[in-house]
Amino acid sequence: MPLDFKVVHRSKLSRARAGEIHTDHGIIRTPSFIAVGTNGTVKALDNKTVEEIGVELMFCNTYHLMLQPGPDVVARAGGLHSFVRRRLPIITDSGGFQVFSLAYGSVEGELKGKGTKKQANQVIEISEEGVTFRSYRDGRKVVLTPEISVEAQKKFGADIIIPFDELPPYHIRDKALQESLERTHRWQLRSLETHRSAPLHQSMYGVVHGGINLALREQSLRFLLGHPFEGIAIGGSMGKTKDEMRSILRALSENLPNDKPVHLLGIGDLESLPFGVASGVDTFDSSYPTKAARHGLVLTRSGPLKIGRSIYANDLNPIDETCRCATCKHYSRAYLHHLFKAAEPVKDTLLTIHNLTYMVDFMHELRESILEDLI
Amino acid sequence: MPLDFKVVHRSKLSRARAGEIHTDHGIIRTPSFIAVGTNGTVKALDNKTVEEIGVELMFCNTYHLMLQPGPDVVARAGGLHSFVRRRLPIITDSGGFQVFSLAYGSVEGELKGKGTKKQANQVIEISEEGVTFRSYRDGRKVVLTPEISVEAQKKFGADIIIPFDELPPYHIRDKALQESLERTHRWQLRSLETHRSAPLHQSMYGVVHGGINLALREQSLRFLLGHPFEGIAIGGSMGKTKDEMRSILRALSENLPNDKPVHLLGIGDLESLPFGVASGVDTFDSSYPTKAARHGLVLTRSGPLKIGRSIYANDLNPIDETCRCATCKHYSRAYLHHLFKAAEPVKDTLLTIHNLTYMVDFMHELRESILEDLI
Repeated sequence: MPLDFKVVHRSKLSRARAGEIHTDHGIIRTPSFIAVGTNGTVKALDNKTVEEIGVELMFCNTYHLMLQPGPDVVARAGGLHSFVRRRLPIITDSGGFQVFSLAYGSVEGELKGKGTKKQANQVIEISEEGVTFRSYRDGRKVVLTPEISVEAQKKFGADIIIPFDELPPYHIRDKALQESLERTHRWQLRSLETHRSAPLHQSMYGVVHGGINLALREQSLRFLLGHPFEGIAIGGSMGKTKDEMRSILRALSENLPNDKPVHLLGIGDLESLPFGVASGVDTFDSSYPTKAARHGLVLTRSGPLKIGRSIYANDLNPIDETCRCATCKHYSRAYLHHLFKAAEPVKDTLLTIHNLTYMVDFMHELRESILEDLI
Repeated sequence: MPLDFKVVHRSKLSRARAGEIHTDHGIIRTPSFIAVGTNGTVKALDNKTVEEIGVELMFCNTYHLMLQPGPDVVARAGGLHSFVRRRLPIITDSGGFQVFSLAYGSVEGELKGKGTKKQANQVIEISEEGVTFRSYRDGRKVVLTPEISVEAQKKFGADIIIPFDELPPYHIRDKALQESLERTHRWQLRSLETHRSAPLHQSMYGVVHGGINLALREQSLRFLLGHPFEGIAIGGSMGKTKDEMRSILRALSENLPNDKPVHLLGIGDLESLPFGVASGVDTFDSSYPTKAARHGLVLTRSGPLKIGRSIYANDLNPIDETCRCATCKHYSRAYLHHLFKAAEPVKDTLLTIHNLTYMVDFMHELRESILEDLI
């Protein structure tokens, strides 16, 4: 069954809404923070722990999973849920983002989770059909088209899937951006057709493009709403500053669908979340909290804290004594500081548990605020 | 209270015995495998998980903990158990092993767990008083003497502690070895005196030295048994081959105490364990299973398995379907293979859980064999 989106409450103050996305693998209460599990696992956590933290949706990358372990292995295991042992909902992207990052180099740090081989990626050809590139893993030629991406995503079997799209660079002339947008739309329709030929239990979100050109953004949203996508994602370049991102959300906000869930791709820092929610976005994915944890940056109500600082060497308090996470229940700042200084791998596990819990609870509080019309 | 050692059964076939070491933090059922948690944590596992696996004793390194976080921080936290949140027994060594590895370079890979700074260690002076060396962490001068080592171990508060000893290199003339042994004994008596001036709940094991000289080994054991150590550890160079190690154990076996626990320092590979147990050794520490896990070497009843091999890419079975560990209960070989190939940090956690469980269960089975006079 495709997803069922129920709006529980619409704020009287803004476009924010509290909702529930019902899927075959459970309910995502929105607004919700989506943890990034590129290779089918959140970095340094096992999937059981991710569920225990209360992460209701996990984001996996088709690009990575297609190259390793490959869609067929996952399919034989009975799909991604079964392969990675996650009972709760999963979303996969199309692979487009990674492939075009390679081509244009416009997005930094996108391939951090790429494994051990350092061989550079290389885009060989971009055509109407799709993209040909060399695998960073073993140098073999890989072709990615709307059909191939969606077929891979069918084998993965995530609850929410994303059509193959083109991601033009930030610096692009208007005419080229317009052409790119039209191709993205054609690719998304091909993706949608492949999806609808065998929907299974999956739902596909159309991805709004148009870069920082607000007219194109609005045009893209209108176009997608004319087709039977089960949700809307906002993708592509969101600009270089928070202001540019806010302009785009402001331009789209009014026309975002009332009856379909809205996802903001790749943005989930603490500063952007309230504005996104107030603009009508329901779900956000970002590697921010997990990456921050690996750098010793710990999220707290009074701002992020650098656990490696010497002031924590003797601090026997937990990170946050009101926090429900296993790290705060068991360990002191002094111990976490020690693990960090000693470069013990378990520091990543313990700090990621905390940071993800923080994000989940932060979103629960935003949800409460919506229910009380405070946001 | 110092430890209380109860022998439950002595094998009719060998010197093997099934026992219980009672400590203030619980009972260690012997023979037992001791996990290495150099910096107060087993690599890639949190201490709660280590307890859940059933690791009844954890081995921490005074050398590392003395340099970071330092004995005072640990003491202020209420001791190592409280600082690292382990409720079960802990043993600390004296730091001697690491310091002398630096001086003589006789032991490879001893400093794998040393943290991020790559600065070389350096021994400045060895005298009757003790050893002066430069910290690998920050280059500062550190003095280690029997008194300083034991005082640090008092602050750590482990259940079992080790006297400061000298570790001569494998290649040493007999006369020098004899002199080293005498100094080691003097240092151990100074350590014992410091210990007995404030025993707390701790017990100190005397460390048998003498390298591969069997006469000196026997002399060392006799010497130690003449002093009120609460247990015996077998340390120093055990030779370069398994045969040399077996000769040493054979030479000591007959005179090992009946009423005190016996520990074999730094040896715990699957091949050596049954021979050690049959020789009268009760506990063994080794980083073998945890290090193996990080290299993708998985322990099974039919021999170790390299999870990175391509034959596991499609293998949807658990590592071992009869294994009780969380990894085998939840994840397939194919998924673990994928995590390994993708260099996902959680692979170390999942494979270490399995390997440590394997060791714990392996020792339980050896214990059963003793109870049935089969070993």
